[in-house]
Amino acid sequence: MTDTDTARYAHWLRIAVEEARTGLAEGGIPIGAALIGRDGAVLGRGRNRRVQDGDPSVHGETAAFKAAGRQRSYAGTTMVTTLSPCWYCSGLVRQFGISRVVIGEARTFHGGHDWLAENGVEVVLLDDPECVGLMTDFIAANPELWNEDIGEEGDA
Amino acid sequence: MTDTDTARYAHWLRIAVEEARTGLAEGGIPIGAALIGRDGAVLGRGRNRRVQDGDPSVHGETAAFKAAGRQRSYAGTTMVTTLSPCWYCSGLVRQFGISRVVIGEARTFHGGHDWLAENGVEVVLLDDPECVGLMTDFIAANPELWNEDIGEEGDA
Repeated sequence: MTDTDTARYAHWLRIAVEEARTGLAEGGIPIGAALIGRDGAVLGRGRNRRVQDGDPSVHGETAAFKAAGRQRSYAGTTMVTTLSPCWYCSGLVRQFGISRVVIGEARTFHGGHDWLAENGVEVVLLDDPECVGLMTDFIAANPELWNEDIGEEGDA
Repeated sequence: MTDTDTARYAHWLRIAVEEARTGLAEGGIPIGAALIGRDGAVLGRGRNRRVQDGDPSVHGETAAFKAAGRQRSYAGTTMVTTLSPCWYCSGLVRQFGISRVVIGEARTFHGGHDWLAENGVEVVLLDDPECVGLMTDFIAANPELWNEDIGEEGDA
């Protein structure tokens, strides 16, 4: 990455982190995302809404994708997300030909980003300490909710 | 499949086809789905709503998943869909551990169902002529809309 890339990705990640923090303040799961256009403009942003809306279909990435509305093409777009995308959200990226995924962290959850990279998506993993802290704290305090969100039975 | 299985799957597919036909009558893309519980009860049903709601995130399968609300586990559930699930919807099935996918047809679109089978999901492909006809007619009449729904650039 060039310094310019690094600065752009860090700026985009801030948008996703803002969404995650808003979700946390709402009592939700702190995962946020944004879909960035070819020109760097924010097409849509959103956050996990399982708790807030009782809706398991709204992950950060799907919320951002929805907020961007109908698009004729996703070529050149970037999905920035605070957390490695689960299979559901990785499938979204692959199906619609989103070109790049910028990921806050993959320590607390390792989703489908290796699969995306194998299938031609540019994957940028930032390993951001703030993102790690958000999820580490949340999972420790809400293990059942977290397991529900990723379809794990857990020990509960 | 036993005769009982065949009858159950055909019954479930009728629900998905009803959803697809409702979508078509609304001017939408005719793909429907339902999530069926361990006990055979319908947990949720829905249809593609790209056109109706201007929402690209609502495919038949994600609509059915949303309609089922929050579930602690998807073990033993079946997603029945009129069309082979795209990567987005295949990712949904894998992430949440939905046990079985019953598919109306995969002639007009071949999604991620082989990948699901490789990853432990029971895949039942019915090759239903009514489902094939619905999509064949729709794609012939609306090629641009169909390409948009699966993230293809098309020739347009």
